[in-house]
Amino acid sequence: MNYNEPTISKETIYNGKIIDVEVHDVELQNGETSKRELVFHNGAVCVCALTPEKQVLLVEQFRKPAEKTLLEIPAGKLEAGEERESAAKRELEEETGYIADHLTLITEMYGSPGFSSEKTSIYFADDLKEGKMHLDDDEFLEVKSYSIAEIKQMLQNNELEDAKTIIALQYLLLNYNDSN
Amino acid sequence: MNYNEPTISKETIYNGKIIDVEVHDVELQNGETSKRELVFHNGAVCVCALTPEKQVLLVEQFRKPAEKTLLEIPAGKLEAGEERESAAKRELEEETGYIADHLTLITEMYGSPGFSSEKTSIYFADDLKEGKMHLDDDEFLEVKSYSIAEIKQMLQNNELEDAKTIIALQYLLLNYNDSN
Repeated sequence: MNYNEPTISKETIYNGKIIDVEVHDVELQNGETSKRELVFHNGAVCVCALTPEKQVLLVEQFRKPAEKTLLEIPAGKLEAGEERESAAKRELEEETGYIADHLTLITEMYGSPGFSSEKTSIYFADDLKEGKMHLDDDEFLEVKSYSIAEIKQMLQNNELEDAKTIIALQYLLLNYNDSN
Repeated sequence: MNYNEPTISKETIYNGKIIDVEVHDVELQNGETSKRELVFHNGAVCVCALTPEKQVLLVEQFRKPAEKTLLEIPAGKLEAGEERESAAKRELEEETGYIADHLTLITEMYGSPGFSSEKTSIYFADDLKEGKMHLDDDEFLEVKSYSIAEIKQMLQNNELEDAKTIIALQYLLLNYNDSN
């Protein structure tokens, strides 16, 4: 498949701290035009981290868009100009107090490709050592840890509702060999 | 963990066809206030569908927010008042021309819980029969089909970049028994 949707004109709706919103008039492949409502986001990073005791680290925090508390792997926004792997290491230490020297990329994904440009890089780390937790001023979260057997049960019970977390933990079940 | 972020005041930024955008001033658990940039979306549904020949159906379409073509399981927005399972059956038939009588819920997930309310329900179906394809006026996509062995390879090569698709196909690899 070899086509795109070139922008003919665009309107800026909002420039925020985390998202920008634009509406584009685009040209479709049949020559007609259509509107696309677009949310631009700088991107996100997250880490599926396994402690020396083979515990998976998750953080529980209230998510206003969902109006509920979600259990997620440690994650954060990419700062302007920041390299993705450094950002992932920074977020892991800030949110959990653990330092990872080596990250393995699991995958990169779009969480809502119908309207959002946010691309999330998901990493794996199992060489953790102790660092220093440091949360943002408006960030409140609780660090929890679970065995891989518990994670398997939580996935089976649909207790996890965050896309990046489900992807990372299914990857762990598919690929992680306990003898690693 | 037992707290939320009550809205003190809010500003409506945009009311669109697919998304609404609001900025809320919320009260944090320490009594301070903070701003939350929120994108409201009616929700989405999608189906991981396996044909009688054990082929997985994917649709390839250009996604303006990512400025690229993505390969995804058949999916769509929930219409106002529409029931999720009916919507999933409707989207499957519209996009692929296949009818499923019975859907199994794989899981429900938030693709971008930091700013978006969009909740996606992911279903599985393997009792397909032929129906009638019918695309929206501004929808252009190509239906493709892959064996489970090909899907496994595509996941390993990180060729899939859509969150709901990765979740559904990892689930298939973890849970689908060919003798089913």
